[in-house]
Amino acid sequence: MNFKEVQQIIDSDLKKVSDTIRSFLDSKISFIGQVASYLIESGGKRFRPTVHILSARACGYEGERMYTIASTLEFIHTATLLHDDVVDYAELRRGQPTANILWGNEATVLVGDFLLARSFYALVGDGDLDVLKCVSNATTRMAEGEILQLLQTNNPEITFNEYLEIIKCKTAVLIAAASECGAILGKKDSQIRQRMHNFGMKIGIAFQITDDTLDYIIEDKTLGKTRGQDFLDGKVTLPFILAYEKSEEREREVLKSLFLKEEKDQRDFDKIYNILESKNAFNESFQHASRYVEEAKEEISFLESSYRDYLEIIADYILERKY
Amino acid sequence: MNFKEVQQIIDSDLKKVSDTIRSFLDSKISFIGQVASYLIESGGKRFRPTVHILSARACGYEGERMYTIASTLEFIHTATLLHDDVVDYAELRRGQPTANILWGNEATVLVGDFLLARSFYALVGDGDLDVLKCVSNATTRMAEGEILQLLQTNNPEITFNEYLEIIKCKTAVLIAAASECGAILGKKDSQIRQRMHNFGMKIGIAFQITDDTLDYIIEDKTLGKTRGQDFLDGKVTLPFILAYEKSEEREREVLKSLFLKEEKDQRDFDKIYNILESKNAFNESFQHASRYVEEAKEEISFLESSYRDYLEIIADYILERKY
Repeated sequence: MNFKEVQQIIDSDLKKVSDTIRSFLDSKISFIGQVASYLIESGGKRFRPTVHILSARACGYEGERMYTIASTLEFIHTATLLHDDVVDYAELRRGQPTANILWGNEATVLVGDFLLARSFYALVGDGDLDVLKCVSNATTRMAEGEILQLLQTNNPEITFNEYLEIIKCKTAVLIAAASECGAILGKKDSQIRQRMHNFGMKIGIAFQITDDTLDYIIEDKTLGKTRGQDFLDGKVTLPFILAYEKSEEREREVLKSLFLKEEKDQRDFDKIYNILESKNAFNESFQHASRYVEEAKEEISFLESSYRDYLEIIADYILERKY
Repeated sequence: MNFKEVQQIIDSDLKKVSDTIRSFLDSKISFIGQVASYLIESGGKRFRPTVHILSARACGYEGERMYTIASTLEFIHTATLLHDDVVDYAELRRGQPTANILWGNEATVLVGDFLLARSFYALVGDGDLDVLKCVSNATTRMAEGEILQLLQTNNPEITFNEYLEIIKCKTAVLIAAASECGAILGKKDSQIRQRMHNFGMKIGIAFQITDDTLDYIIEDKTLGKTRGQDFLDGKVTLPFILAYEKSEEREREVLKSLFLKEEKDQRDFDKIYNILESKNAFNESFQHASRYVEEAKEEISFLESSYRDYLEIIADYILERKY
């Protein structure tokens, strides 16, 4: 069974999430719906809603509140994509022009703000302070992660732990909130909440490591990404860090000077790719991702539900994306 | 008694708000505090905290929760200033270079996001769903107001009601939340909450009308604003609307063509200023502001507290800004 097949099992839930998303976008300002749904309804995998629904079901929850929570998680994720594209001057996402290209930076920033605010308004309507705390904490840390990443741009000496902190914040905490909120809905105790949180955090870390490694390896038209985009943007990610760590002083100077070059081109990318490949950095990077996926599955071994199997399939899917 | 003297009466409260703001900015990422406090600690009048504290005291509240709420209102206000400056390509605010000039659009967008998220996290910590509902609703409407304004840029045919809706959303709803949350802290019934809400809404409307009218009239170095900035930015505000309403077809064509000119200069501004002045548009615009201030004072006539007098002084202060 694969990711898509798991999603088919919760197909009616995911449809209700889509209905809820549409109802939240039903502003008298139709432009907001137009910009937001461009991103929300085009090619998104609904990864966070899927993790939340499976987690809630795995924890025995059977009500309707998960549609609200899943929708707000998708809103918050979309808000960060909108703001990221402005921050990164991105022109393509999932193979389509970005919102900032179509509607300008102004509208893109403001629709992102709307989605953030609307999310909290919806969660306040749900009225659960534990959920609110979990999600508002995640959102705060996400902003911190984006800022940390910005501050570390063009720093080739960033350490593994600094990198880990950035990807935890910018990606993993929201996925951790998705799974933890499932445990909150299931009224589980704090120990189980923590394990569900850890599950989401670990698959989130694996997700971002895989993304960052694939950025060096494949031209991904479905992600709308050029190969080597992170390198061109001055973003230091795990393969570089692993190669840098095991390099001697002279090799480090080569890596640094390639990274810090003002106008990098395809030949610079090819050079850095070959060095990283010679250091086995890509394989090792994927091995880190695999380790996090294994640890994530370990976290939910206590679950006695067919939904545990589905969560494991979601976890494994993260690694399969490399093929 | 004037605005500053009223603030002196609640000086110890305002100091505690400053302490709370600093504690909320105490992120391990010192850069966030640096960017945010540049704006929060430099020349802001603490208008929303002042309205909130006076409203809470007027409604008989004597606890400490108002410091948290006042701080989050200032954070949300600051977040919108940061994002506005990116949206407007602004270079000066309160006579100082804007954050986007000093640190770039990227950091400015992200620190704004942090402030929004941190506000909700703080309010969740406070744990009052009524306060959360009031503030999250205001924040959602603020984003809507900014988007409405963007969509109406360069539209000389915007009506008074459309203008009113924009300034309610972008400015007045947060001030309404400041006063309404005072009533919530004082555990007042829904009727009194509504009147306190109306008070804030009406002074907020008066505040923005005054700002928009002053934009035509004075070069305000303390606001860091060039005279005629809104006109140059294609923002249609009340003086223009009033003049346009009472113009004949031929005069309207002149107003429209001046407004829609691609590269406006000082001579265009002088022309439009003279037309608006000849139509008595500035005086009438200030009269609208005065009417809202009078209505605002009427809303709180039920209060039996010396704090009612202070709130009235705050309301009157809005009009005095024109001198």
